[in-house]
Amino acid sequence: MIENTLNKSAGKALSVKQKVMAENKKPSRTEISEYGEFGLIRHLTESFAPRNHSTVRAVGDDAAVLDMDGKLTLVSTDLLLEGIHFDLSYFPLKHLGYKAVAVNISDICAMNGVARQVTVSLGISNRFSVEALETFYAGVKQACDEYGVDLVGGDTSSSVQGMVISVTAIGEVDKDRVVYRSGARVGDLVCVTGYLGDAYVGLQILEREKRIFQEHPDVQPELKGNELFLERFFHPVIRTETIQLFADAHVVPTAMIDLSDGLASDLMHIGKASGVGAYIEEAGVPIRTETQLKIIEEFRMDPITVALHGGEDYELLFTVSPKDLDKVKLLPNLFIAGEITPAADGFKLHTKGGNIHDLKAQGWRHF
Amino acid sequence: MIENTLNKSAGKALSVKQKVMAENKKPSRTEISEYGEFGLIRHLTESFAPRNHSTVRAVGDDAAVLDMDGKLTLVSTDLLLEGIHFDLSYFPLKHLGYKAVAVNISDICAMNGVARQVTVSLGISNRFSVEALETFYAGVKQACDEYGVDLVGGDTSSSVQGMVISVTAIGEVDKDRVVYRSGARVGDLVCVTGYLGDAYVGLQILEREKRIFQEHPDVQPELKGNELFLERFFHPVIRTETIQLFADAHVVPTAMIDLSDGLASDLMHIGKASGVGAYIEEAGVPIRTETQLKIIEEFRMDPITVALHGGEDYELLFTVSPKDLDKVKLLPNLFIAGEITPAADGFKLHTKGGNIHDLKAQGWRHF
Repeated sequence: MIENTLNKSAGKALSVKQKVMAENKKPSRTEISEYGEFGLIRHLTESFAPRNHSTVRAVGDDAAVLDMDGKLTLVSTDLLLEGIHFDLSYFPLKHLGYKAVAVNISDICAMNGVARQVTVSLGISNRFSVEALETFYAGVKQACDEYGVDLVGGDTSSSVQGMVISVTAIGEVDKDRVVYRSGARVGDLVCVTGYLGDAYVGLQILEREKRIFQEHPDVQPELKGNELFLERFFHPVIRTETIQLFADAHVVPTAMIDLSDGLASDLMHIGKASGVGAYIEEAGVPIRTETQLKIIEEFRMDPITVALHGGEDYELLFTVSPKDLDKVKLLPNLFIAGEITPAADGFKLHTKGGNIHDLKAQGWRHF
Repeated sequence: MIENTLNKSAGKALSVKQKVMAENKKPSRTEISEYGEFGLIRHLTESFAPRNHSTVRAVGDDAAVLDMDGKLTLVSTDLLLEGIHFDLSYFPLKHLGYKAVAVNISDICAMNGVARQVTVSLGISNRFSVEALETFYAGVKQACDEYGVDLVGGDTSSSVQGMVISVTAIGEVDKDRVVYRSGARVGDLVCVTGYLGDAYVGLQILEREKRIFQEHPDVQPELKGNELFLERFFHPVIRTETIQLFADAHVVPTAMIDLSDGLASDLMHIGKASGVGAYIEEAGVPIRTETQLKIIEEFRMDPITVALHGGEDYELLFTVSPKDLDKVKLLPNLFIAGEITPAADGFKLHTKGGNIHDLKAQGWRHF
């Protein structure tokens, strides 16, 4: 800044380079790592105050909520970068196209909404052929067909870097049925729509095979018996049916999120947004028996740790008032895993052995 | 494919690597360069048929058009990649944040709509400090403030590559006022909302200064007298006022697009979508006198070439029925540059000297 002023006072024009450097670099430097993933975006956006009456809810939930004088419009967006969110060496392009769309539909579900449209933009280097892009778009189309959404925009442009995927999903929900992260109340039940940990196991298998292949290119990895885990990692089942069942059963969850980071981390998102605490019963966390065996025997880990912190399951985590218990119990694939408590009680795990541990947010995001 | 089948018939499991390669690589290879920018996205998306009644218009215009049982919702998205769409060595981060939002608002204007919300997602490497991100977001905020839009979503994630910016703008328009590229009719007037070529001159100056700096780091570039051009490149004026004036004057253009690629290329987008041709009168193309002098004296180019192919001006190009001429004439900064003709007449330039040339689409996109 001093350099800038001195140059100006000397009546000398600043070079473009100097001007850019003066604007891009400030004297103090705070590392991005000093903020967490969620802290950073909150810090950067906290000065933005909504001014349009159509903006119902802005940054901070699974999707933005807009009121265009009819049903509420939901908008969710995701930017996926090669080397950060996905690894092309083991992620087939068709699966990648599928999952990029599917996880955005999952964000719309997490607001109790129905996804209607997506936009998909791609940045790709010339090493990709048109056929490779067609394969990616075949996956996009499969997700659009399965979940009944329309592709309504997007673009492809060349990238001098790795592959970049940007997806925006648009959905709708009746005004009296929208569900935020912030509605959980003390005494509400904490529910999960399916088994946890499978996707994490799938990812671990893929990373193990990649390491083996890199070290011993002649060894044929054995994938037999692992199809379920790979399938759950590549093709998460998005719980659009659950949203329909909520509507049919006339139930509105009090809070909801999709399990992308892991049960512990995502439960704490709900808890913090709602100003409450929660406990999880280890006995209530749904993990398949074969998944438990795989985790223990091959990866030497504790199954509950994988279920709490694994992420990528894309099941729905929601809270519901005890008065709606009878309606909710009838839903298929539903597991009651815990209960909402006062904020002062924090976030706890009640183990099968009768111990109580603090839950920690060790969420990760590895597409 | 043969390898794949052989492996299977030998009863041998395919390695993950082989499976991925089999899915990612197909025997034939078509280079992306064989399709143009617009041909590629059309090719990749032509098999997607809309199925939701809320999808009014999908891929192929400035924004998608959705009907959420109220006003129409407009959605436009842009993926901007360092090294392709912008060059950080001369693009200050604050201007970059501003322009990334502004050009998406421009897409909403091009549908005759009013932008209400944006989402901004960033991929950035650790070489960026939090202060650098704050500078970028200060530009985002300036654009949000100037154009009255709300930031409602987005995310930041680390990138092992260059900087990646993804912006989605959401807007609204009354059902009877939405304007597509496809509505131009023979005899309609071709209009432009302001002077052309300034942004291209600004970019040329920046690239020249960059070259000089790279070759002679000790030379101080002279930027005095070029502020207008740099300003028009960094801070395009988005014509939200024109949209308001259309409403006040009870005029609905027959077709509209924003000038990002250049007058010739963007006029041909309208012409092809509408099934018509058009001519441009060289005498009717608005170029400032000082811009003409700069182009001729410093860049040794023909001003009309820059105006036709320069791009980045973000003025609106629209067509209007001759019966609305009296209403349109009253709008400030309005220039009538040509007329819509039958498709068989193609796209022409009528020069000041009385000659007729074919217009060519030499659009480029260099943010």
